[in-house]
Amino acid sequence: MSTMRAVRVVGYHQNLEMTETAIPEARGPWDVVVRIGGAGVCRTDLHILEGQWAEKSQVTLPYTIGHENAGWVHAVGSAVTNVAEGDKVILHPLVTCGLCRACRSGDDVHCENSAFPGIDTNGGYAEYLLTSARSCVRLDDALEPADVAALADAGLTAYHAAAKAARRLTPRDTCVVIGAGGLGHIGIQVLKALTPARLVVVDRNPAALRLAESVGADVGVLGDGGHVDEVLGLTGGAGAEVVVDFVGENGSTAEGLAMTRQAGDYHVVGYGENVDVPTIDLISSEKNVIGNLVGSYNDLQDLMALAAKGLVTLHTQKYALDDFQQAVSDLDAGEVRGRAILVP
Amino acid sequence: MSTMRAVRVVGYHQNLEMTETAIPEARGPWDVVVRIGGAGVCRTDLHILEGQWAEKSQVTLPYTIGHENAGWVHAVGSAVTNVAEGDKVILHPLVTCGLCRACRSGDDVHCENSAFPGIDTNGGYAEYLLTSARSCVRLDDALEPADVAALADAGLTAYHAAAKAARRLTPRDTCVVIGAGGLGHIGIQVLKALTPARLVVVDRNPAALRLAESVGADVGVLGDGGHVDEVLGLTGGAGAEVVVDFVGENGSTAEGLAMTRQAGDYHVVGYGENVDVPTIDLISSEKNVIGNLVGSYNDLQDLMALAAKGLVTLHTQKYALDDFQQAVSDLDAGEVRGRAILVP
Amino acid sequence: MSTMRAVRVVGYHQNLEMTETAIPEARGPWDVVVRIGGAGVCRTDLHILEGQWAEKSQVTLPYTIGHENAGWVHAVGSAVTNVAEGDKVILHPLVTCGLCRACRSGDDVHCENSAFPGIDTNGGYAEYLLTSARSCVRLDDALEPADVAALADAGLTAYHAAAKAARRLTPRDTCVVIGAGGLGHIGIQVLKALTPARLVVVDRNPAALRLAESVGADVGVLGDGGHVDEVLGLTGGAGAEVVVDFVGENGSTAEGLAMTRQAGDYHVVGYGENVDVPTIDLISSEKNVIGNLVGSYNDLQDLMALAAKGLVTLHTQKYALDDFQQAVSDLDAGEVRGRAILVP
Amino acid sequence: MSTMRAVRVVGYHQNLEMTETAIPEARGPWDVVVRIGGAGVCRTDLHILEGQWAEKSQVTLPYTIGHENAGWVHAVGSAVTNVAEGDKVILHPLVTCGLCRACRSGDDVHCENSAFPGIDTNGGYAEYLLTSARSCVRLDDALEPADVAALADAGLTAYHAAAKAARRLTPRDTCVVIGAGGLGHIGIQVLKALTPARLVVVDRNPAALRLAESVGADVGVLGDGGHVDEVLGLTGGAGAEVVVDFVGENGSTAEGLAMTRQAGDYHVVGYGENVDVPTIDLISSEKNVIGNLVGSYNDLQDLMALAAKGLVTLHTQKYALDDFQQAVSDLDAGEVRGRAILVP
Repeated sequence: MSTMRAVRVVGYHQNLEMTETAIPEARGPWDVVVRIGGAGVCRTDLHILEGQWAEKSQVTLPYTIGHENAGWVHAVGSAVTNVAEGDKVILHPLVTCGLCRACRSGDDVHCENSAFPGIDTNGGYAEYLLTSARSCVRLDDALEPADVAALADAGLTAYHAAAKAARRLTPRDTCVVIGAGGLGHIGIQVLKALTPARLVVVDRNPAALRLAESVGADVGVLGDGGHVDEVLGLTGGAGAEVVVDFVGENGSTAEGLAMTRQAGDYHVVGYGENVDVPTIDLISSEKNVIGNLVGSYNDLQDLMALAAKGLVTLHTQKYALDDFQQAVSDLDAGEVRGRAILVP
Repeated sequence: MSTMRAVRVVGYHQNLEMTETAIPEARGPWDVVVRIGGAGVCRTDLHILEGQWAEKSQVTLPYTIGHENAGWVHAVGSAVTNVAEGDKVILHPLVTCGLCRACRSGDDVHCENSAFPGIDTNGGYAEYLLTSARSCVRLDDALEPADVAALADAGLTAYHAAAKAARRLTPRDTCVVIGAGGLGHIGIQVLKALTPARLVVVDRNPAALRLAESVGADVGVLGDGGHVDEVLGLTGGAGAEVVVDFVGENGSTAEGLAMTRQAGDYHVVGYGENVDVPTIDLISSEKNVIGNLVGSYNDLQDLMALAAKGLVTLHTQKYALDDFQQAVSDLDAGEVRGRAILVP
Repeated sequence: MSTMRAVRVVGYHQNLEMTETAIPEARGPWDVVVRIGGAGVCRTDLHILEGQWAEKSQVTLPYTIGHENAGWVHAVGSAVTNVAEGDKVILHPLVTCGLCRACRSGDDVHCENSAFPGIDTNGGYAEYLLTSARSCVRLDDALEPADVAALADAGLTAYHAAAKAARRLTPRDTCVVIGAGGLGHIGIQVLKALTPARLVVVDRNPAALRLAESVGADVGVLGDGGHVDEVLGLTGGAGAEVVVDFVGENGSTAEGLAMTRQAGDYHVVGYGENVDVPTIDLISSEKNVIGNLVGSYNDLQDLMALAAKGLVTLHTQKYALDDFQQAVSDLDAGEVRGRAILVP
Repeated sequence: MSTMRAVRVVGYHQNLEMTETAIPEARGPWDVVVRIGGAGVCRTDLHILEGQWAEKSQVTLPYTIGHENAGWVHAVGSAVTNVAEGDKVILHPLVTCGLCRACRSGDDVHCENSAFPGIDTNGGYAEYLLTSARSCVRLDDALEPADVAALADAGLTAYHAAAKAARRLTPRDTCVVIGAGGLGHIGIQVLKALTPARLVVVDRNPAALRLAESVGADVGVLGDGGHVDEVLGLTGGAGAEVVVDFVGENGSTAEGLAMTRQAGDYHVVGYGENVDVPTIDLISSEKNVIGNLVGSYNDLQDLMALAAKGLVTLHTQKYALDDFQQAVSDLDAGEVRGRAILVP
């Protein structure tokens, strides 16, 4: 077989299209070709189709979409030593250079020469994907590509923020999670695994709170307008040592800062509105506003270790690759429970 | 002698008044009475007289002003073991409880039960001041109270921010200091002592830049409108790993964030305007906004160690206590070079 | 009632004696008198009776023994603000000054002016004990003094080492615990609460391994001579990132270092033999040997937070205070399961 | 020109021999061929000739010796992006894989698949050397290969230990350096650049102490038998927060630990004897014994940044490559001041 099926962006504000195209080859020394076992369908994919990423990514159409990928190693370049044909792998979303200062410090997300399959080059809504040895994390026997694919980007972002937040949490502390949706739901599991601090989860949706409590939240607080006061009440009026905001819009940033204790950390993960805070407030309270991007390669290794131990799980709804339009439509209509995954 | 001279706030929008009042006594177990050797005259004192602190401090008038104090121990309470009569000391600006969680962690600035002499209780424009054993830092033989008094609050704030900033700086990094005035001038000396990173100082005043260069700045950048681009140019377009903003108004927050590299820290020390930044920018760049208050007791000990080594110095203009009105007027008129100090 | 029962050391190599003595009073400003609810009977108490501590502690006989204490606040000195009469408390084993550099840094264990009730001054085999406000940790409603008293010293030592060890552990790491006895058993629970790293426990006693597994060990390894190889086998030949040695004798130090991975940490908690290692081995492997003493006041607060959440529990065997000789004899004869506690 | 001169080990206990051999080529994707500008002659080279490394390195004779190398890039492999032909570079002593866990964490020294030119493969006593893009650090215009070559290994080891040690040092602390020879002399300069802590240097040689003081030591202590007491005296009887031991033999380990304060760090860099310390001493004092190997790639970048600022300098004695035997003999006879460098 020398060709494969791949789902491509052929124009903005148009439907995706299935095409037959050449299977990529491992020509470069660190190249790895992966046979896709699962590709996550993400809200970002909808935004790509709306053209929101066109200017930023500068991608040339048509190209294959899909940035949350896992599968099996199909072929490797001449210098690849960390994976071999047949290995089960999940892929870090970035393909990084390995030589810049960020890469040499384990902070590969800030690589000066990275590519982003599914965003600015061909991605994983396909039977095969070209990536790099530096992006491959081998999966434990207990894990299957289609089950973990969505941890490659959305899950990795949640992990990164939760792990950074957990570093300063002690058994006496409180951590507030704002938003128990896709990312928040992973973040709660990660926090539960990494710290015995009390986890308070705020969400406007009672069903999301029930889910949060089932995966580790100690207290659920309904976001009904009284939630800031309720969190302050739970912390003796002082606020939480750490707040992780997976929403970032509709007033959550001001609320999140208001729930943060003196000398505490407010983590921004979700986005939409501005953080707009008087410098006098930042100074007199000595609070920190911490930005968070997707996690590093090491973060993904750590997240997979948690997944292998059963400490982080994800509900998925699987679709055959040929049903890509159904998956995208379901996501757009809010009819996916957990994450939609395309399985070639 | 059982009475002393003290300079009091008798009403807002009125001049300070000299009065004769009782010398405080060391009645409580950790009480320490200090004979003042120098009291810094600070811009905050002007704001107090304008009534800007009335609501916040809830202080009852009349009271003795002055929150930057140093001198000699005059009397100690029954439980004091760390200083003795005659010791030369500088005073941490807060009187803290020693029992709350913050105090037990060395983070006494966030003490849950603190007093602030000169702000909400009697301060140091006087011959004697009542404080606590927990606030006393003994001075090295090489240092004199009147020379270091202004380091007790303004200097301590600069030290705290600079020391926090220095923790992540490597020899390859760049640190930008915005504002080479009173605090910035100390901050530059502290940074120079704590890190070999390149120090770039931005100020609108050429004389301030010359001063900055004389105390350790590696590069001075005139804040003439092209300064953000100039800093980016100095850092290969990427920005500095750390920016410490001693200004906090007139656009410095947006400029400071623009000069901050991906994954870098922007420290807020000066205040006035709002930090107003899109969450998408914080996230995609993974920048942090770090709040800074005055330093801890340990910070003041460290700062005095630097001063004793001659690594941090301060220009002072001394006034007799009886000339308090002249000192205040000179400060208000911008005619003080360095810091004004009252010497009883 | 103005007198109380107290159990005293009246001479080395003699039995303890019950006497009637004055109830201590809270005369100093930070003094706290605690009505004892439980006092742990520790192996150190046996060593005291054998005279092993006589020279080191310089204590004057007779004095009241007992250094693991919890109870209810009975009276407080004039300056005490953190506890009040009737509060349920556990006591940090040291009475510290609060003013030295160590105390000001939260590292009160290295206080330059500390006392140690039960070792060098009167302890808790009694109805009442004199301590300091700085030593009192309030207990959660869910905890009872007699149940947690033994966490005050033995448990606190285990917590301190485990918490230091956990700081560098990631979900991919392995932590080896040597010795699942009194301290090890607490250490395992603490590690389980603080880190998702794999916990491998080595002990010569199959029953101890079963206990270890019931409280959180992932793998139990019988210390039958093949245990070093077994641990190396579990870690791909490389050894564990962290080893915490609660034994410190009979060859455990060499074995512990042999089980430690390159760039790993070997924690010494138990003691007896020498660490004897070629410098060339420390250098070529870049291993660290980490000393561990009892925990700080903050550590005890954190440990009580874990206990209140039910994450650390202790099996106790309670004796009336009058039955002190039985408790001591049972401990000496190895007939106590868990920890012996005297209850007045 | 397709051949070059290279100095080879042809047998143990025999002299090195100059031969004509093929210039290496950049065949692999990350290969870099460097034209040597300077190769350090190190005491390890003498030990290699004595056969001390034969078993450990398993190197096949003959091979080219020399593991401290700097020069100009001559040719690069297909995937090299960080350096280009003509660039001035210093070479990290290890050639690492870039894919193992250690490499991905910036800890390339513990790479699972590394080679060591000059030790287990061809080194730099030659006109050209084959290395990897991952080992190349570009030099600032102000630095010349022959001047910095000896910083590639000896200097990098000193940097690594000093930088680790400096991380916990505050302006109030004391750091003791044992041994002001080749490594110690660099370590002192690095410590001076990274921390304002007081530097106390102990050496048996008065001339070495004078050199130490000229490059930054605050106090020199002659190692005449009274030096432990002298250091204790300088620190109020308590010892230093950090001791960095560049000797590691003739009793320095016991002395070093005796000079270390409670809760302090004793760093092992030099080697020879055993660290032999009772566990009870490690525990009651809570001291740490820290192993140190050569530095990472990032450490070498940082060291070169210090060198470019003029904060670390090295005295060198240069020899033409043809005079290799003279250089080796001079080193063996103790007649080299600073470091001997071969210049092709």
